[in-house]
Amino acid sequence: MTTRRGLFLTFEGLDGCGKTTQMRMLAERLRASGETVIETAEPGGTAIGGAIRRILLDPANDHLSSTAEMLLYFAARAQNLDEIVRPATARGEIVLCDRWTDSTWAYQGYGRELGVDVIRSLDRIACRGRQPDLTLWIDVDLETSLNRAKCRNEETDSSDRMDDQSRAFYERVLRGYEALEAEEPGRVVRVDGRGDLDTVAGRVWRLFHDYREIHV
Amino acid sequence: MTTRRGLFLTFEGLDGCGKTTQMRMLAERLRASGETVIETAEPGGTAIGGAIRRILLDPANDHLSSTAEMLLYFAARAQNLDEIVRPATARGEIVLCDRWTDSTWAYQGYGRELGVDVIRSLDRIACRGRQPDLTLWIDVDLETSLNRAKCRNEETDSSDRMDDQSRAFYERVLRGYEALEAEEPGRVVRVDGRGDLDTVAGRVWRLFHDYREIHV
Repeated sequence: MTTRRGLFLTFEGLDGCGKTTQMRMLAERLRASGETVIETAEPGGTAIGGAIRRILLDPANDHLSSTAEMLLYFAARAQNLDEIVRPATARGEIVLCDRWTDSTWAYQGYGRELGVDVIRSLDRIACRGRQPDLTLWIDVDLETSLNRAKCRNEETDSSDRMDDQSRAFYERVLRGYEALEAEEPGRVVRVDGRGDLDTVAGRVWRLFHDYREIHV
Repeated sequence: MTTRRGLFLTFEGLDGCGKTTQMRMLAERLRASGETVIETAEPGGTAIGGAIRRILLDPANDHLSSTAEMLLYFAARAQNLDEIVRPATARGEIVLCDRWTDSTWAYQGYGRELGVDVIRSLDRIACRGRQPDLTLWIDVDLETSLNRAKCRNEETDSSDRMDDQSRAFYERVLRGYEALEAEEPGRVVRVDGRGDLDTVAGRVWRLFHDYREIHV
């Protein structure tokens, strides 16, 4: 199978929802079927984005202002778009990205209550009209997300700024994803994130396959 | 003399125009007259801004996209505003800042030809309506600017990305400052940057003094 045309696909959801694993599994399956797949991530998907990510996650930067944080995420995104997404899709490749503007919509717009108008304006500036072709929102309930994120931090003995956020914050983030799906049902598709890895991967594959069938 | 009210004053101009020196001289004179003065700079005026500045100036990042660059400048500015400018002016202090949005207007909007509409939109988001009370544009001709910048690089054996820009780029930047003065004559005041340091400092002091007399 050759790539029919470039495709820009993003994975979204709460921390611990399983999107990173699901993205990797989809990439492997696509490669096995002969596709050229680029995997990237926000904000650290480029070297410059990695430097930006270090600023965002450094515990010494706990006084980072909400507005500065939001602008840093969009700076990383603009770089990713120009350095990876545009060139790869222009070559007809499939780009899979772990988080995109929808994360800023949910985490900063809803979670930090900065509002969605400012996210829309920044997206227009940073991404210049380029949106993901398809966005898979891996939906798990809040308890699952918080427990998985907690386990991960205990395993790796790591903690960063985001983990200090309150439960109320993540509830708002979840409402942000729900609002997004309601607003852009043609692009944002909810995937039931419950069940074992293969079950969820099966759902992801079917959604991807259906999308490709329609958008030849 | 006690500070009557907080004041946010910015210095602008081409690289090598003398604004950094003039700002320091004004700060010293104001302190000698009993004022509390905070000196800051864009983009490196805060620790977070310093980290952003290292990304901007790293020669390894010569593939930094124009849009990402612009967003990084505004991220540093939002942090400076929230961490330094707002608190200090609220305490009635004088904040002097080496570059602000006007630099992005001139360097990115005009120099890199990204347009000024996008700069205005980003300023509204990053600075939320807060503008400098007074902006002194230290105006020197292009030859003086280029020669001084060249000498400085030879002295310090340093070079960064900005120095690789072409002469045409700096001509556009200069046109940006001219357009800005025409557009906002009440805030942006041109200072003749020719002559020795004390001569220019005298001009700066008179303009500052006149501003304070009117805006008691």
